[in-house]
Amino acid sequence: THSFKDRVVSVASACARDLGFEVLACASTGNLANAVAAQAAALGMQSFVFIPSDLEEQKILATGVYGTNVVAVNGNYDDVNRLCTELSGEHESWAFVNVNLRPYYAEGSKTLAYEIGEQLGWTTPDRVVAPIASGSLFTKIGKGFREFRELGLLTGEQPTMSGAQAVGCSPVAQAWEAGTDVCRPVKPDTIAKSLAIGNPADGPYAIDLAKATGGSIEAVTDDEIRAGIRLLAETTGIFTGTAGGTTTATLAKLAEQGAIDPDERVVLVITGDGLKTLDAVRGSFETHVIEPSYSAFEREFAGVA
Amino acid sequence: THSFKDRVVSVASACARDLGFEVLACASTGNLANAVAAQAAALGMQSFVFIPSDLEEQKILATGVYGTNVVAVNGNYDDVNRLCTELSGEHESWAFVNVNLRPYYAEGSKTLAYEIGEQLGWTTPDRVVAPIASGSLFTKIGKGFREFRELGLLTGEQPTMSGAQAVGCSPVAQAWEAGTDVCRPVKPDTIAKSLAIGNPADGPYAIDLAKATGGSIEAVTDDEIRAGIRLLAETTGIFTGTAGGTTTATLAKLAEQGAIDPDERVVLVITGDGLKTLDAVRGSFETHVIEPSYSAFEREFAGVA
Repeated sequence: THSFKDRVVSVASACARDLGFEVLACASTGNLANAVAAQAAALGMQSFVFIPSDLEEQKILATGVYGTNVVAVNGNYDDVNRLCTELSGEHESWAFVNVNLRPYYAEGSKTLAYEIGEQLGWTTPDRVVAPIASGSLFTKIGKGFREFRELGLLTGEQPTMSGAQAVGCSPVAQAWEAGTDVCRPVKPDTIAKSLAIGNPADGPYAIDLAKATGGSIEAVTDDEIRAGIRLLAETTGIFTGTAGGTTTATLAKLAEQGAIDPDERVVLVITGDGLKTLDAVRGSFETHVIEPSYSAFEREFAGVA
Repeated sequence: THSFKDRVVSVASACARDLGFEVLACASTGNLANAVAAQAAALGMQSFVFIPSDLEEQKILATGVYGTNVVAVNGNYDDVNRLCTELSGEHESWAFVNVNLRPYYAEGSKTLAYEIGEQLGWTTPDRVVAPIASGSLFTKIGKGFREFRELGLLTGEQPTMSGAQAVGCSPVAQAWEAGTDVCRPVKPDTIAKSLAIGNPADGPYAIDLAKATGGSIEAVTDDEIRAGIRLLAETTGIFTGTAGGTTTATLAKLAEQGAIDPDERVVLVITGDGLKTLDAVRGSFETHVIEPSYSAFEREFAGVA
């Protein structure tokens, strides 16, 4: 379903079945709802996805199509989460992937490290640039590399970990800047909705990891995020969403600052697809409208083509 | 870019570079524009994509992001095609993937047969159900199986080929029904826009192939297409667009008619992603809106959950 949530749901749902749960569920703001609904359909399990009722219609359409029970809660994501925590206590056969199954769910992010290592011929990269929302993905990538190195499956040093946040929701980057590991909660205001967690549970661990590996945690503006989406698309043919734009913009910023050695082998973690956040690229390029004639084309592109 | 056009553009653009072309271009109604713009970006080539000016904004956004030159032509797809044919005559260094490079482009569809064979352990399936627009993809899948069988790379019989069209644009299915291989042009009116070619160049060859392999060519209604999208999503966790809905609905129809032996190994060719045609699933499911409380949930789902 075009985001890294498929990885974490895959691990959580496999455990849900092993542990005898009958219903798959989640609290979500979009990507996770897609992933849970799709995996439940593929596994033939019943599912419930809980979302804030003001969620964009396109995210609801891409979730409901799988035949899940879409529950739109009149409240914000915190309200949704609270309700899910209560429900998980009352419905013993329900696996909320990011509530009562969260430990398994979180470990699913380690597969990113495994796959990076595999694609690099079972070696580690010098640096990984990855986004930070709750901080779980960021820290679990580090854990994945560490465990595979300890097992002898990967050779090379532990990679430098560089974290990426949006200025409009950057409690971890702010704490990093202030030289503390205490992340003060913020009220999110950014186009990077999938990274907009104002009170990140794993923020302190993300800071520890960045520090221990010689990395840092940066924040970029919404304009830089939009430019990051364009930069990645224009240079690689990969269209990412706002989270990937945040990560790409952070890499660009580090490169401009000279913080990255030109010889470093850097992996940029792109966690979602641009088709999910199309609004972010509106107005970022010009469309040439012409009449259907050769001369009209030549006039419009005189001197260019 | 989430449609099979990536395959045909990949082959055409590789040839474009071998042949010394400098600019990648196409006439497109959406998916092809995405693929050409992305591949050109990945290859570092300049590109021009020509589209009808009434194309949906989301398709334009997902094309322009790659830094291509988006040329919106005031006219229909036929007008766009005509202009591109003229331009290809005047710009010798331009590779229009589906005009002057069409032979290479068309061969790209054979990779579908190669990959199906590989995934089935280098054997052929009993039947392939695939959509028909121009008829090129359908016939080239047949060609791919035939060539790999002749080369000894695949074992098994040539698969039965079943073609799928939308009733609102079904010149090939109508010819099949009438027992002729003459496809009379039609004016398309269907939600399956990517299959809406009223005058399919390879229609007669598609009919020949269906006949030679014991298959058929069917047409399904827009409602059946919507139901096909839902059926695939609910049973497999795969969200396809209207073209895939057409193919799925055709398979369902053949199964209901008893035209498929229960022991057959059938491959359904899904050519595009549901995120590209979200409108088709609007209204196809219920969203439950509740207050953020346990009791509100229990009331809404009394007796269900």
